[in-house]
Amino acid sequence: MSNEIFVKMALDGWQGQLKSTDTLLNKLSDEQLMQEVSPGRNRGIYLLGHLASVHDLMLPLLRFEEPMYPALRPIFVDSPDRAVADLPPISELRGQWTAVNEKLAAHFAGLSPDEWFTRHASISQEDFEKEPHRNRLNVILVRTIHLSSHRGQLAFLASKG
Amino acid sequence: MSNEIFVKMALDGWQGQLKSTDTLLNKLSDEQLMQEVSPGRNRGIYLLGHLASVHDLMLPLLRFEEPMYPALRPIFVDSPDRAVADLPPISELRGQWTAVNEKLAAHFAGLSPDEWFTRHASISQEDFEKEPHRNRLNVILVRTIHLSSHRGQLAFLASKG
Repeated sequence: MSNEIFVKMALDGWQGQLKSTDTLLNKLSDEQLMQEVSPGRNRGIYLLGHLASVHDLMLPLLRFEEPMYPALRPIFVDSPDRAVADLPPISELRGQWTAVNEKLAAHFAGLSPDEWFTRHASISQEDFEKEPHRNRLNVILVRTIHLSSHRGQLAFLASKG
Repeated sequence: MSNEIFVKMALDGWQGQLKSTDTLLNKLSDEQLMQEVSPGRNRGIYLLGHLASVHDLMLPLLRFEEPMYPALRPIFVDSPDRAVADLPPISELRGQWTAVNEKLAAHFAGLSPDEWFTRHASISQEDFEKEPHRNRLNVILVRTIHLSSHRGQLAFLASKG
């Protein structure tokens, strides 16, 4: 079994979830995204900003580059929904979500299969030698699961039927 | 990169989602599971039966054995929630959910890393030679994403704070 096949398996899952999320977001109006996904739970706008920021933070985690939108983190990762009164406009968050995923895709395209199995930024080279599963490709698996969880919640904002 | 490491990465994700789901299900009362996860959406009992059946159907999909609870499929996979009036009791579904996951774990423990990269039951040997990513381990990746999506929805049944 070659590394290429593992990489394809992981990236297929990632891209599938991104595609489903984009299809859903394109169906949701800005008004729908201002609603709570379920009574008393996060609003759509918060989940959109949260996902944009978490994916933005994959840029340094995967040792590609600095985050594009570090200002999102205190609002959408370090704070719960409604803790910050003034959120960026949804149109801006939609653009950042797209830009971050395109930037990630460009980096992915330049990575060889073997490079996927090198360490991510949150583990030292020393520890990585003992725990080689904590590699960049594992970040993709973990973040795909994270995206899926929130996509399943955002789906409640769409009209039924 | 050895096959063992990729198998560990995929199974870590699977087990992590199972553990989170079990923790959540243990917190939810039968009464809570009778509620809709969000207004007009699936009830908890439906999602529990759905997950139990989808995991049960992994037994033949992974070429291990026949499903343990084939009667769940017409109710929880082929039909939407509320299409079938008489559902099994929640206590029974909880037990089946646990039994199916234990059965899968027992089969996983007997599979060598190389065996994970053989075909699953929905692809012919001939097609598999052209599409080797459609292997048993990929079923784990796909089903982990599926579980995560519904776990994120079931979480809305839990009390806040």
